[in-house]
Formats: sequence, structure tokens, C-alpha cells
Amino acid sequence: MTKENQFTETHQVTYYETDLTGQVTLAMLVDMAVLASYDQAEALGVGTQAMLKQGLGWVITQYEIQVVRLPKDREQLEITTEATSNDRYFANRQFFVRDDDGNLLVHIKAVYVVMDLVARRMIAIPDALIAPYHAPNVKRIPRLPRPSKITEDETFITNDYHVRYFDLDTNHHVNNARYFDWLLDPLGEEFLTKHRLQHVTIRFENEVRYGHTITSVVTTPLTVDGAIVTKHQIVGTGEAQGQTYAEAELTWLVAEAMDEPN
Amino acid sequence: MTKENQFTETHQVTYYETDLTGQVTLAMLVDMAVLASYDQAEALGVGTQAMLKQGLGWVITQYEIQVVRLPKDREQLEITTEATSNDRYFANRQFFVRDDDGNLLVHIKAVYVVMDLVARRMIAIPDALIAPYHAPNVKRIPRLPRPSKITEDETFITNDYHVRYFDLDTNHHVNNARYFDWLLDPLGEEFLTKHRLQHVTIRFENEVRYGHTITSVVTTPLTVDGAIVTKHQIVGTGEAQGQTYAEAELTWLVAEAMDEPN
Repeated sequence: MTKENQFTETHQVTYYETDLTGQVTLAMLVDMAVLASYDQAEALGVGTQAMLKQGLGWVITQYEIQVVRLPKDREQLEITTEATSNDRYFANRQFFVRDDDGNLLVHIKAVYVVMDLVARRMIAIPDALIAPYHAPNVKRIPRLPRPSKITEDETFITNDYHVRYFDLDTNHHVNNARYFDWLLDPLGEEFLTKHRLQHVTIRFENEVRYGHTITSVVTTPLTVDGAIVTKHQIVGTGEAQGQTYAEAELTWLVAEAMDEPN
Repeated sequence: MTKENQFTETHQVTYYETDLTGQVTLAMLVDMAVLASYDQAEALGVGTQAMLKQGLGWVITQYEIQVVRLPKDREQLEITTEATSNDRYFANRQFFVRDDDGNLLVHIKAVYVVMDLVARRMIAIPDALIAPYHAPNVKRIPRLPRPSKITEDETFITNDYHVRYFDLDTNHHVNNARYFDWLLDPLGEEFLTKHRLQHVTIRFENEVRYGHTITSVVTTPLTVDGAIVTKHQIVGTGEAQGQTYAEAELTWLVAEAMDEPN
């Protein structure tokens, strides 16, 4: 049974959407989920091109991601997106990534806003853009959990990343998914191959622009209530020192402790 | 009519395989072509997992790419790969990327070798791995054109890139396609949005490893016989100074001069 505000499509995972362990990367997971929301918009006549003509674009300001397990190379997925609810400025959207047998692999909640691409600022969601989704219009959409701040007594590592031409999308905006590669890379191969991602909260605070160099700050992994936690910040360097672009909090399990034989 | 040594599959382009102009990036183009060769290998029982069990992997040492036009977002493609011929050490493979009406968009020629992944060296192609393709076994496969060297009197720009965790593939090798992002990025948005790629020759000389920082060297674009030419090198920095990882030569057309209304 499909609800009117839902849209479902299938996707077969390719090797270049996976990392060296053969699992889909977080960046590509978000890319393929967002593709479903683009395709829903297209099907409803309010797609990217229609919005670009009005100088508008959807921008994602926050995600909460719950991972049962990451999809694998060659796996056939069913991706459902749902326009859950919206208020005057914010739209709540969910994504459900399922395997071929209908088992839920990943659940994503997201907050979308509409950007005026010329003025580079958020505007009230135009009714013509949101009405076709038939999502409940509410007074105030539920908030997603905020990532915890890095505190002064925590130890951390940092790495710098230059924003590249190929990080830009058709909005001339750095694709949000690219932030996940910057967030995770400083953790290094040793950590990333021995741990499995369980949960992500991320808030995008300010827009990273082409040509910027950003610093990815990651706290030393700490065990809190049985889960391994890393806290992350994407911050400015040079003239942009003091600027925070994004904050995130991730929880992990030791890979060996998981009961998956494959 | 499909030849015994050919394999064809369809692929629908996603937005995250394209750049800000909505055209498939060179890296993603090569990724989706190589996917067809992986799928052919799988269909013939000599796929990646079967090879990894023997500690072996195919590595691409050279490409020649002829671009009629780059595929676009949402376009439905037909990708054909052909095991063209092979000698004792080298296998010649071609890729034909066509649009939904069968028009050729891109033609790729590639040279493949087999690597012993433990010793990190090339070996003679094991007969059991190549026989299933039914490609002609020749004395010596035809060579692909070599990119011209950068000469001392040429001006160039450089940019440094750090090899990231997500650049690694299941061979624990830097995915060849990543080199294309490093090659092109220094050209910058102004050049890249105003020119269309026409032809590429690239030779991979040495393996870039995880943790390396590489320098991408690009000559100032020069018009030679009506085509705009850029010459490229991926070289080592620090301890790896003097090391050449790859050399390439690209030709371009001014985008405005092309008669494509879309």
C-alpha cells in the first residue's frame, strides 16, 4: 500500500557506490536516497528544472540516519521517500532503504528548506511547490535531534580538504553528500574498516563554497553506554576561521561484534 | 548481433554521476564503462570475487577515450564492452557508450593487465581467466597512443590532492577513475564549464597509495590545429618527489561552438 505522499523506486548498487569493504559509502547512500526525492518531484511536475527556472532549489539542513546495515555491491534496493509534513519554512521528509526481501536497511529523516539561489537565502516554501506532495501542513514540524558539541576537554584530529569542481551540483552548491567523505576520511582506514556505522545526526549550518578549504575535526572515538561515539565539525580555515559549516555525531559498533556471516 | 566476446547492459544516469552542467563526469563515465566489464566477468564466472580468492586483480594501464558528447542526467544508456584481443601480458578492451537511439556517444579503448595483489606486480595473464572471453589471442596487441610529455618551456598550474579512504577500491588500490578528478580539477570552473572534452589519452605509470599526497600538473591550454590541448601529469610530492604516477593529454572544443541546443 503506497500512501499518496510516498514514492518508491528500485536501485541496483554499483561497485563505484561502495568502499573497499564492498559496502555503500554514506555519501552515496544519501545520494541515492535523495535521487528518489528528485524523481518524486519530477513525477509531480515540480522537479529540479522547473525550480531552477524560478531561481529556487531545495536544500537539506539536517539528517538523522539509522543504519541497520549498509547496502552491499550488486544488491537490489527498494528506496521509498515520503514527504512527511511541512510548516511555513521547513519540510520533513523520510527515506526507507530496503533490501530485495523488504527488510529495512536504513531509515533517514531529513529537513528540507527552499533557497532563493540568487539571494542565497531561505524563503517560505511556495505553496505551488509543496501542494502536489499532499503532505500534512502543520504548525511546526518535529525537530530532529541535534549533534552534541565538541567540548574543550576532548581530544581530536583534523584534516584539511579543498572544495573541488566536482563537489558542485546543478544548484552551484556543494552537494551535501560530499560532507560525509570529509567527515569520515580523518578516521582512517584502520578505524573505518573495523567499525560499522549505526547512527548519524548532522546539521548543515553554513554553505561551503567552491574554492574554500575546510577543516574536518573529529574527536577521538569514545565508548558511551556501549556505543562508540565520534563527534565532528566542518569548520573554516584562513579568512573563514571561526566559521562552522556543519556539525555531526556518529555512533559505531565494532565490526567483529556483529553477527553477520557474509 | 552480439559477438561472443561482447557484453551489453543498460544504465540510467543519476544526478550524482554528473557535474554542475548536468553532464556525466569523466570519472563516472569510466566507472560505468568498467562496471560493464565487471558484469561480463561475473557472467563468465571469472568475476572480482573469484579473482580475489586467487590474490589477483585486473588493473587498467592505459585508456584512449573519444567523446562525441558526454551523457546527460537521466539519460538511458546502452554500454557495450568487448574483450578485443590479448597477448601474454596485455588485454585490449573496448567500450561503446550509446544513447537510447543507438547513437555512439563515447568510444573507449583500454589496456588491462593482471596484478598479483600480494606482490603488487604484473603477471602473465592466466589462461583460465582469459579463455572464457573468446577474444583472439595475438602475438602483440596494438598499442594505444601515448600522451605527449610536458616540455620544459611550457607553463603550467599545479594543485595538490590527498589520497582519501574513499578513493580505495576492493583491490585496495586507488580506483583509476579518481585520477580524472585530480587531472581536471586544477583547470577550474571557468575553463571546465566553457569547454567540452573531445579526446583523452592517459597512461598509468605507477600506483598511487593511500595516504599519499599527489600533485596534479596541467599545462596552460593551447590551441593546436584548431583543437585546445591540455597536457597533464600526476606526480609525487615530499619523499615521492620525482615519481610520475600518470600522464595524460586531453583535447577540448569551446562549448559555444558546438551546435547542441539542449
